[in-house]
Amino acid sequence: MKLQVALDGDLASSRAILAQVHAFIDIAEIGTPLIYREGMNAVKTLRADYPNLTLLADLKIMDAGEEEAAIAFEAGADIVTVLGVAHDDTVSRAVTAARRSSGGKQVLVDMLQVNDLVERGRELLALGVDYLCIHTAYDLQRSGATPFAHLQYLRAMLPDSPLAVAGGVKPDTLDSLLAFKPEIVVVGGAITRAANPAEVARQIHERIHR
Amino acid sequence: MKLQVALDGDLASSRAILAQVHAFIDIAEIGTPLIYREGMNAVKTLRADYPNLTLLADLKIMDAGEEEAAIAFEAGADIVTVLGVAHDDTVSRAVTAARRSSGGKQVLVDMLQVNDLVERGRELLALGVDYLCIHTAYDLQRSGATPFAHLQYLRAMLPDSPLAVAGGVKPDTLDSLLAFKPEIVVVGGAITRAANPAEVARQIHERIHR
Repeated sequence: MKLQVALDGDLASSRAILAQVHAFIDIAEIGTPLIYREGMNAVKTLRADYPNLTLLADLKIMDAGEEEAAIAFEAGADIVTVLGVAHDDTVSRAVTAARRSSGGKQVLVDMLQVNDLVERGRELLALGVDYLCIHTAYDLQRSGATPFAHLQYLRAMLPDSPLAVAGGVKPDTLDSLLAFKPEIVVVGGAITRAANPAEVARQIHERIHR
Repeated sequence: MKLQVALDGDLASSRAILAQVHAFIDIAEIGTPLIYREGMNAVKTLRADYPNLTLLADLKIMDAGEEEAAIAFEAGADIVTVLGVAHDDTVSRAVTAARRSSGGKQVLVDMLQVNDLVERGRELLALGVDYLCIHTAYDLQRSGATPFAHLQYLRAMLPDSPLAVAGGVKPDTLDSLLAFKPEIVVVGGAITRAANPAEVARQIHERIHR
């Protein structure tokens, strides 16, 4: 199981947080807002800061799968995200870009707004994607939505598939999610907006890896 | 009717093309790949180059509608794009960001992968979006797909709604699309990869505005 921290602020604050938490995380996510602000400069800067850290670029690709994934892979990202609602051809071409690259590049599918998680999940895995990410939208978290039920359901239906989980994950909801054995747990604000990000990251890291 | 040119290359080539075509276009689109590469630097640079040109930032927002739209509006964009497959709350919040901004900012919805164009189109218009964009994915254009049939259908069902059309639009398919009175016609490679971009843009501009 891996801990991914989602960096959604500006580049300076993201670097400052990563400097505090990098020892306790497995994957640093360059979040969609950070990509919108900084483009691939964010990926290149964090790659230069941490040559060996796994970097995920949260592009949320919806079209031009091969070309757009290649932009992030060439900038130094190890994993890119594609939307599960994208067309099969777009997903396949992002997978092609990953396989064409050297160094074991991967594709994570964000399942935002996918209606039939199991059917679409099976199709996506057949297209060669590396992870399915159950994701409660930021815009739905304030109405109390959590990824718990969807993760439970998908894990029951796809017992051996590599799943990730994202969307308002906090220390006090962590154990209930870990029971469903996600490969990747994505934590954003609970770390990045904590008074002591390193301490929260350390605690979550310890619970994930124990 | 307005002509939008989609700039999907790097910033230097996009500036070079815009220098040639700006007199013949109504809207310059900072395309998704250009945003991935350059972030808001692309919007700010083109805004500085052309203080009065309408700029569309093709963010394809899927979550955090208000926050992500605000990133582009604050950088100088006039229009941002949201995905039609996004949750209603995300669409509404992008509209909120537009209405909160001064200067008549707008939201264009990219209808990529929307199943029921009419039902979803009506919902999106009720949420306050400014345009519905019929868009044939880049990844589907090589199998010969065009936006013609979807535009025809949506125009028949929503006779007075502000529509846009994108995806492989070329001079020789233009007249058949114009018959359905889109508010915005988006042209990418047919202009940006032309031997003489200004001449193609001028011809399309003339046919759109005559």
